[in-house]
Amino acid sequence: MPKGYNGKILRVDLTSGEIKVEEPSEVIYRTYMGGGGLASYYLLRELPPGIDPLGPENILIFASSVITGAPVSGMVRYTVAAKSPLTGGYGEAEAGGFFGPELKFAGFDAVIINGKAPKPSYLWIHGGEAEIRSAAEIWGLETGPAQEKIRQELGDARIRVAQAGPAGEKLVRFACVINELKHANGRTGMGAVMGSKNLRAIAARGKERLEFHDPEKMKELAKLQAELISQWGPNKVMRKLGTPNLVMALNTQGILPTRNFYTGVFAGAEKISGERMAETILKSEEGCYACGVRCKRAVEVSEGPYATSSEYGGPEYETLSSLGSLLCIDDLAAISKGNELCNRYGLDTISVGVAIGFAMECFEKGLFTKADTEGIEFRMGNAEAMVKGIEWIAKRKKGIGDLMAEGVKIAAARVGKGAEKYALHIKGQELPMHDPRGKTGQGLSFALSPTGADHIEAPHDTPFATAGAMLGRIAPLGLLEPVPTRDLGPQKVRNYVYLHFVWSLFNSLGICNFTAGPVWAFPINKWAELVGAVTGWDTSLWELLKVGERTVTMARVFNLREGFGRKDDTLPDRLFEPLEGGPLHGKGIDRKEFDDALTMYYEAMGWDSQEGIPTKGKLAELNLAWLDEMIKDKRRGK
Amino acid sequence: MPKGYNGKILRVDLTSGEIKVEEPSEVIYRTYMGGGGLASYYLLRELPPGIDPLGPENILIFASSVITGAPVSGMVRYTVAAKSPLTGGYGEAEAGGFFGPELKFAGFDAVIINGKAPKPSYLWIHGGEAEIRSAAEIWGLETGPAQEKIRQELGDARIRVAQAGPAGEKLVRFACVINELKHANGRTGMGAVMGSKNLRAIAARGKERLEFHDPEKMKELAKLQAELISQWGPNKVMRKLGTPNLVMALNTQGILPTRNFYTGVFAGAEKISGERMAETILKSEEGCYACGVRCKRAVEVSEGPYATSSEYGGPEYETLSSLGSLLCIDDLAAISKGNELCNRYGLDTISVGVAIGFAMECFEKGLFTKADTEGIEFRMGNAEAMVKGIEWIAKRKKGIGDLMAEGVKIAAARVGKGAEKYALHIKGQELPMHDPRGKTGQGLSFALSPTGADHIEAPHDTPFATAGAMLGRIAPLGLLEPVPTRDLGPQKVRNYVYLHFVWSLFNSLGICNFTAGPVWAFPINKWAELVGAVTGWDTSLWELLKVGERTVTMARVFNLREGFGRKDDTLPDRLFEPLEGGPLHGKGIDRKEFDDALTMYYEAMGWDSQEGIPTKGKLAELNLAWLDEMIKDKRRGK
Repeated sequence: MPKGYNGKILRVDLTSGEIKVEEPSEVIYRTYMGGGGLASYYLLRELPPGIDPLGPENILIFASSVITGAPVSGMVRYTVAAKSPLTGGYGEAEAGGFFGPELKFAGFDAVIINGKAPKPSYLWIHGGEAEIRSAAEIWGLETGPAQEKIRQELGDARIRVAQAGPAGEKLVRFACVINELKHANGRTGMGAVMGSKNLRAIAARGKERLEFHDPEKMKELAKLQAELISQWGPNKVMRKLGTPNLVMALNTQGILPTRNFYTGVFAGAEKISGERMAETILKSEEGCYACGVRCKRAVEVSEGPYATSSEYGGPEYETLSSLGSLLCIDDLAAISKGNELCNRYGLDTISVGVAIGFAMECFEKGLFTKADTEGIEFRMGNAEAMVKGIEWIAKRKKGIGDLMAEGVKIAAARVGKGAEKYALHIKGQELPMHDPRGKTGQGLSFALSPTGADHIEAPHDTPFATAGAMLGRIAPLGLLEPVPTRDLGPQKVRNYVYLHFVWSLFNSLGICNFTAGPVWAFPINKWAELVGAVTGWDTSLWELLKVGERTVTMARVFNLREGFGRKDDTLPDRLFEPLEGGPLHGKGIDRKEFDDALTMYYEAMGWDSQEGIPTKGKLAELNLAWLDEMIKDKRRGK
Repeated sequence: MPKGYNGKILRVDLTSGEIKVEEPSEVIYRTYMGGGGLASYYLLRELPPGIDPLGPENILIFASSVITGAPVSGMVRYTVAAKSPLTGGYGEAEAGGFFGPELKFAGFDAVIINGKAPKPSYLWIHGGEAEIRSAAEIWGLETGPAQEKIRQELGDARIRVAQAGPAGEKLVRFACVINELKHANGRTGMGAVMGSKNLRAIAARGKERLEFHDPEKMKELAKLQAELISQWGPNKVMRKLGTPNLVMALNTQGILPTRNFYTGVFAGAEKISGERMAETILKSEEGCYACGVRCKRAVEVSEGPYATSSEYGGPEYETLSSLGSLLCIDDLAAISKGNELCNRYGLDTISVGVAIGFAMECFEKGLFTKADTEGIEFRMGNAEAMVKGIEWIAKRKKGIGDLMAEGVKIAAARVGKGAEKYALHIKGQELPMHDPRGKTGQGLSFALSPTGADHIEAPHDTPFATAGAMLGRIAPLGLLEPVPTRDLGPQKVRNYVYLHFVWSLFNSLGICNFTAGPVWAFPINKWAELVGAVTGWDTSLWELLKVGERTVTMARVFNLREGFGRKDDTLPDRLFEPLEGGPLHGKGIDRKEFDDALTMYYEAMGWDSQEGIPTKGKLAELNLAWLDEMIKDKRRGK
């Protein structure tokens, strides 16, 4: 019976070269759904705690979901997961684009990779089969040439390539996975895990169409989604400006991260805004598989020191801020070039920006000198320094490059002398470009994301503050009343908890935030209909949100096994300090309020109040009783 | 805009005679929905702990729900709630029939009654108005004549009357509320609370039709439900035999409560079965407002000592067992007479049967003698004794009658000499006719129902053991795999928790178990559609089950305030002992397993592991932060 997914998972042991196909039961698929849910399931079952994330024992999982590839805008993302070399905890990153659907068309819902290849390799998946091939000729190449080489070698220009770039080969701890040169599984260093396994790329090509349980219903939902996207205000903005629309929106609110999060207003904001991009360097609006939102930007800078090729896409909001406002850089061409370099090398632009910001602040505070920086004034506002810094990181240039490539947590520890103050990270992962001082839910989100500071692993702040027309959109969750942006009381925690389930569900189903979130087009009450139309399951929002809750809890267990606890669920000191300037001048996050909110979150999750350890009963409720063995000693140890 | 409910709550102060109308916000209606949810909300807000349930300080609430009266089979029930004189904790009982819808047609969604009338009174509600009237002429009458008198006095034969009978006037602790002589808000002594307030009855008549948000959708759902009811096997059995079908079903499984729960097989089962009833004394199949199930039985015994009038309906399964097998009585006419008497006097048949069983066991063990029983051999199997016993209870006959009227908990304490062993109750409320030794989920249900042993306040066991076709019905809850009937591990707890939310939701929405349960016709994924069609709310199964969870938690807080805790969440010793005879001979409930399951339940609910006190964070998550003040001292006191 058509069910929209293959029911097959590819197992690859790179050490032995053995390839197998596994067919999990329907109950496993329905319980974990895909993406982060399915990946957590396998990681917890098969990965012992304490292993070296860059050793052959790590397990790397590429997972689409039961609905990835459904021809409805936004059902396109897939997950790469492993133990993170950046945080030492649960690692996971999602990407849009085309690779997730292609993997399914090629016959598999997920790929689970063990071991380490004896020499540089890539994996070629097509028609329900797979082959480990030599990457001797692509090792060391930038992503563009590498992709080209693979396509030539396999004789198919339509092959989709997900790859670690040279940065991944060099084990830069925040090396990412780059898909088709521009879609990134950006966070937690999954590219480094590929590099550590001598696995440069996965190439996939599928010619089979997925068969869905209820094709008529699928058409109806696809049509509805298309109509909603064309009419819904926020999605219209996304089409017009992409995520760069946020530059001006956040600057106006006083929370555009600027000068390493000292302030939230940037004098050069307009110069790096989505509006400016649209007027100047924007070459095309692009989109992901079957998606009508088309929020992706491809930019071209045709001349000058920062000439940029549109082949590598263009900077998202996060990058405009991390390589721009954060570093007080207002040169859109330089930022675009930085973005291109990150995509060429396979680097996470968020971590890159924060690492450079850290180094700049160290330089300004006298911890680094020109002797460390090839004579460059490595200061805020210096675009050339930023571009150089990216090269240094990618190549692990001895000294400052190699240092930044470790991520700011390790770097700060090595530098010492109080450098921790300039290292903006949580659990070792660098902060995304959102300032919790103007939206406190984002603070919970950063502190509680299992991957460290992350704006995709836990909810964006936007829906917390919903009001008016927007509020009705989250009403099916039972969230009926607006909560002030800077509130950190019970109502904020309540909203946060439910939306955390939503975001987690999205990462398990591969749903894009920009198409179906509480803010975006596809309404909450259509999610279960869609999953049902694809799979034939008589599912519900209850069952789906419990998948979200289950996945949050699995990631928590993963991290507890690795020694994480309450001490790690916090924010960098800087965010407790007051903002300088702008409409929120003087506002920080209140430590007591934050701590109380954290406790309430633990309790709301059925975790213990002190360390956030899931109780045995809560595990039972979530059909996770099998995890109890892994953490019961932690509980006794209290 | 049409919304299916009035938005009006009637406030009656019997002491002062003041009558007011209150209009709660839509958020209050949507958060608490009605029935047990709305009643808990008002009780917790307005009733201080520690008051005498039979004093004027108690608050008595009659609450329909936002969907009560929707013309779809089964959406008909309403709740009577107050602090229970039987348990000293949360008191609540639902009834079907016609009164709930009538109350809404008369202009009010609920009635909140404070104080005590200076003299016998009844309340007359019609056309959005209300009047306190003298009950001087009906005080002391049996329910039939009382109803007749009220109808005559008000000049309308179609008035619906909910009343305490003479037993309520006498403050029998398990006196119930009787609607139209045969539908009972049976448990927790709500009739006694009416009696204590000098409120004999509420008469309602409404001529307005409710207007629904989406009448077309309502028609579609009503049609669907009618079709399902006519086709679905379990509902066909209900139509044919009513709840009495359970006599043979449970006897075959070896769990028909017999001889005060010593055994689960009854030699006389066939004689008191639904099948035998259908062949002999059944006069008509009856139903509730707009319901196509028609599971109610009216019986007639035309001659002999147990001549019975069909005006008072007929015994349900619970009554066939509580006045039959439990007491080793196999005389269907005697049981029918006993049922009629209970309805005439306003007595809960379950508590009556267990109270008589207690007295019979005391007699057999020599704790009572013929001197206590007017010379009657008050032994198991004596039908005459049972019928006499009912009279004695209703009239609080000095000695044994007055004693039984206190409920078995108080009675056993008074008798002493080990009589507690014969008193089958939890939290002071007598056990319903289900034996947890053959279906352990029912044990959790009895122990964890906030009202004490109750088979409607927490889930029936049936869905725990679902398999095959039935299992698919609870799949939208994420419950995908069968759990053995006698299991008490994590899977059983998981199923129990979700189904507890379902049962609680039913008691807040006024949905009948026999039309929309996980077992019965109306599918889980239609519940939110129905609530939406009635009210216009874009709701979901998530939001609805959270209403269920919220209500369970409110009731927990209510009981904690009154001093209840883990010690009260248990079963009578007899259920831990092995069953005698039948297919489950030798099987008891394992105390350790039970205790572990209890702990898991507390934890799954976000309550503390020891005493089951909801955490501050869990209260926040459920939008119940306002309750934290009430229990935080209990938490500190640990």
